[in-house]
Amino acid sequence: MSTYFKTADTYVTGSMTLPQRYYTSGEVFEQEQEGIFKKGWMCVGHQSRISKAGEYFLANILEENLIVLRDRQNQIRAFYNVCRHRGTRICEESEGQFKGSIQCSYHAWTYGLDGTLIGAPFMKDLEGFRWEDFPLRAVPLHVWEGFIFISLNMNNPEPFEGMYAPMLDRLERWNVGRLKVHTRHVYDTSSNWKYIFQNFNECYHCPTIHPRLNKYTNYTSAENDLVEGPFLGGFMNITGGESMTMSGRMCALPLGDLGTGIERRGFYYTLLPNLLINIHPDYLMYHLLLPLGPGRTTIISEWLFNADAFDMPDFRPQEAVDFWHETNLQDWHVCELGQKGVSSQGYAPGWYSPRESLLAAFDREYLRIME
Amino acid sequence: MSTYFKTADTYVTGSMTLPQRYYTSGEVFEQEQEGIFKKGWMCVGHQSRISKAGEYFLANILEENLIVLRDRQNQIRAFYNVCRHRGTRICEESEGQFKGSIQCSYHAWTYGLDGTLIGAPFMKDLEGFRWEDFPLRAVPLHVWEGFIFISLNMNNPEPFEGMYAPMLDRLERWNVGRLKVHTRHVYDTSSNWKYIFQNFNECYHCPTIHPRLNKYTNYTSAENDLVEGPFLGGFMNITGGESMTMSGRMCALPLGDLGTGIERRGFYYTLLPNLLINIHPDYLMYHLLLPLGPGRTTIISEWLFNADAFDMPDFRPQEAVDFWHETNLQDWHVCELGQKGVSSQGYAPGWYSPRESLLAAFDREYLRIME
Amino acid sequence: MSTYFKTADTYVTGSMTLPQRYYTSGEVFEQEQEGIFKKGWMCVGHQSRISKAGEYFLANILEENLIVLRDRQNQIRAFYNVCRHRGTRICEESEGQFKGSIQCSYHAWTYGLDGTLIGAPFMKDLEGFRWEDFPLRAVPLHVWEGFIFISLNMNNPEPFEGMYAPMLDRLERWNVGRLKVHTRHVYDTSSNWKYIFQNFNECYHCPTIHPRLNKYTNYTSAENDLVEGPFLGGFMNITGGESMTMSGRMCALPLGDLGTGIERRGFYYTLLPNLLINIHPDYLMYHLLLPLGPGRTTIISEWLFNADAFDMPDFRPQEAVDFWHETNLQDWHVCELGQKGVSSQGYAPGWYSPRESLLAAFDREYLRIME
Repeated sequence: MSTYFKTADTYVTGSMTLPQRYYTSGEVFEQEQEGIFKKGWMCVGHQSRISKAGEYFLANILEENLIVLRDRQNQIRAFYNVCRHRGTRICEESEGQFKGSIQCSYHAWTYGLDGTLIGAPFMKDLEGFRWEDFPLRAVPLHVWEGFIFISLNMNNPEPFEGMYAPMLDRLERWNVGRLKVHTRHVYDTSSNWKYIFQNFNECYHCPTIHPRLNKYTNYTSAENDLVEGPFLGGFMNITGGESMTMSGRMCALPLGDLGTGIERRGFYYTLLPNLLINIHPDYLMYHLLLPLGPGRTTIISEWLFNADAFDMPDFRPQEAVDFWHETNLQDWHVCELGQKGVSSQGYAPGWYSPRESLLAAFDREYLRIME
Repeated sequence: MSTYFKTADTYVTGSMTLPQRYYTSGEVFEQEQEGIFKKGWMCVGHQSRISKAGEYFLANILEENLIVLRDRQNQIRAFYNVCRHRGTRICEESEGQFKGSIQCSYHAWTYGLDGTLIGAPFMKDLEGFRWEDFPLRAVPLHVWEGFIFISLNMNNPEPFEGMYAPMLDRLERWNVGRLKVHTRHVYDTSSNWKYIFQNFNECYHCPTIHPRLNKYTNYTSAENDLVEGPFLGGFMNITGGESMTMSGRMCALPLGDLGTGIERRGFYYTLLPNLLINIHPDYLMYHLLLPLGPGRTTIISEWLFNADAFDMPDFRPQEAVDFWHETNLQDWHVCELGQKGVSSQGYAPGWYSPRESLLAAFDREYLRIME
Repeated sequence: MSTYFKTADTYVTGSMTLPQRYYTSGEVFEQEQEGIFKKGWMCVGHQSRISKAGEYFLANILEENLIVLRDRQNQIRAFYNVCRHRGTRICEESEGQFKGSIQCSYHAWTYGLDGTLIGAPFMKDLEGFRWEDFPLRAVPLHVWEGFIFISLNMNNPEPFEGMYAPMLDRLERWNVGRLKVHTRHVYDTSSNWKYIFQNFNECYHCPTIHPRLNKYTNYTSAENDLVEGPFLGGFMNITGGESMTMSGRMCALPLGDLGTGIERRGFYYTLLPNLLINIHPDYLMYHLLLPLGPGRTTIISEWLFNADAFDMPDFRPQEAVDFWHETNLQDWHVCELGQKGVSSQGYAPGWYSPRESLLAAFDREYLRIME
């Protein structure tokens, strides 16, 4: 464990914020889509949302719409939501339960939960039509700690285990794969995804924009164990209460074994390109970033708790939800102000402060990939 | 007559739907505007809308706005709705009645119903200004069976009679030129015009999305007499009632002489690029497609009846309107799902079924023009 | 004085309106922004809006947002509304009062009213960081007759005095620098800025679209003293009343010394690129044009009065406001019709009438700059 928490100061004197075009240019945004978002893996949610065979949800990501389902063998799969006949979008409801098969509403072409084409009126009359050539088109998928990652790389991405090696066992202590979603918020923000990403990576702003949160942690107490590369983060000590909730008390059963260094600490990790994780002793909140354009990003936030906590008399999840919903709105608002400012011809890169070492590290990694 | 109804199976095994770009690309859309829509003739409505001298309506088509009017000699004319002085749009009301002349509201320049400039303050003082050089700019126009066709081709289109030769006497039996409009609906859809065009050309979808309509006709009963080229269509037998109305009964006087093969049949024709006609024993409904972009189309639908029917005690036009309004909404919705699906990178051309021979024919003709 | 009022007829027989692209093309609009709007000076308002030290307003112009303030030495300054740290937009309220300094809400970086960086947490720990390198970025500014002009030219514009030489002492008689704003209207119009500019320069349209205004002045009475170049205008005699107000009576103290040729006259001047001024015996109204795109312009209109008039018992400013608000709406509407018309392929340049000599002069000057 101790190897994790080497606090490294990787801040380089004179590190400057990114030039304007990275926040505003449509061309850069296209390059990011191809070179960052579509090339590797993106998170689309947590498995606890689909716990029974046949359950599904639709994932809107970049310009794609995917059916993410649990099949009869309990395996999680993802398919493009596109009929193989005339290209019709098949599912419209954002989540639900399939009754054993998936039927397109246009001409009744029907697929099994594994994607196989099992019904298509009149097509048996058609010489040369090979049914096995027209299953629903599958999307590469990997589940890690319950988080569902997919890839929109049409030539297949690098294996997940290799790309995410530094993260693979990092969340072990919290049983994340067995947590259960309680609340889901969707936020639409007028900001570049990187501005939101970077905002998550520093608490230099906490005294100014988060008066409540700032009572719980000393904003200079951050100790980062991942300080370079696509995965960044560490922890802060919670000194103003047991956990970061409206009352300051734990609001649910602990996520893992307290006494292993996780009590009274808030952990935060960012996983390029689109997953931001906040872990507290009694709950986990994560954000998915879904970029819509250089200046617009949808954020999906979910609050997860120990599955056993839901039936306990003292379960008060709203205390965690309210705490972070308030904090989130403060963050998104300032990110929107940031987007407005960096779009001005009066903007020029500025110096990061010594409290923003992870942002400088993010920029280095980002520019490495983009160049 | 019999030569019409040769049922040809022109379906070619393995005919595939169009590649994605034809539904989504802005460049393709521009090419279509120049090479298809503006090059030839487009329908803008039926003459029964302007029955008296001086009556006009405004036609919004592509990015143009036209004044379509009946002049003092009862001739139908179309003009760009643009003053020859400073370019101001002249008429704002979508339809109305001119009192003998057309006056621009900006500087009171005034035109006769034939377009001649007849008033322009102070311009008589201006040496060299030739009034005859500044009439309202006329748009080529042709009336066929009461349908008003115009052309936005600035170099004049090919003559209508040549381009529409296969259609010229095809609607003779129904007295279409003497029908009268009863109801007009305007629909705004998020779909490519070709998806809507193609949806009209097959009943393979009828059992799934049109439960009411499907009781009236056997969706496999289509007999096509126009099976190749810019004009496609044929008829289906109406077996579940007298006509396609909410009650299943005729709701108006017949359009033409029953006993000539038109009773108990629904005829459907598509005229590239933008006119779709449905003829029933007692009424005609047509759609105008007005494309606004690769993924957006306005559809104007009108219901026409025998002019003599309006005064009959048993005239129940709403039965026809309700029947098709319901059906239209089902169609536009599935076309919007189609547009969403074909926009995905998970879309690839699929095989047409044997029931979609007209769609394959449409694609052949379309690609021939585009290439 | 008499040299001013040479009435010159600079109309050139056969002068034609501008070709379509100047009203509709995005490329032309970009060229205008660089070559006309950003190159020189643009008006952003009148100084009477910020009369005390620390008062500010935000100016939205082109895609920029500026803080315009009065500093402790009573000097008016303008800054890009962008923090020098991470580029955040600093001020959100459209106007207000600073308490001695300007603080960014993100990380509490703080600036003096002269723009100097005076506070930035932790930055003193950072070797090599020179505070004097990070003041708020100033915008070139010049005040003329109380009108605040700024420049978005990043390489500094030509000096104001040179560019505006023909205007410098032209408004002297009206004490414009000491007038006080009473009312401010913001209009959003779907028209090109030049169409609005040109509409202001002719009264040929007055009989048709301004029935009320037309009772006060003879629309053929205009005498222009600035007939060529970037500044155009002159006066009209007010024959139907004392001033152009709802009652026809003066509604406030005169702006300057009557008896100097300003009583019973309405003066109008247009200053390329974005200031239009209307002066009446008892009030001044001006418009700022803020182009948003080829077919969209925001117009800010303000009504100013003699500062001494506000406390007089017979002060009835609403009579002036109502008069021009009605007239403005008539003008913007016809400009929107103009924009629609010139966007048609049926538009072609037309002949200006002899009453539109200033428009022809505007076009000559505009084309000279653009070419």
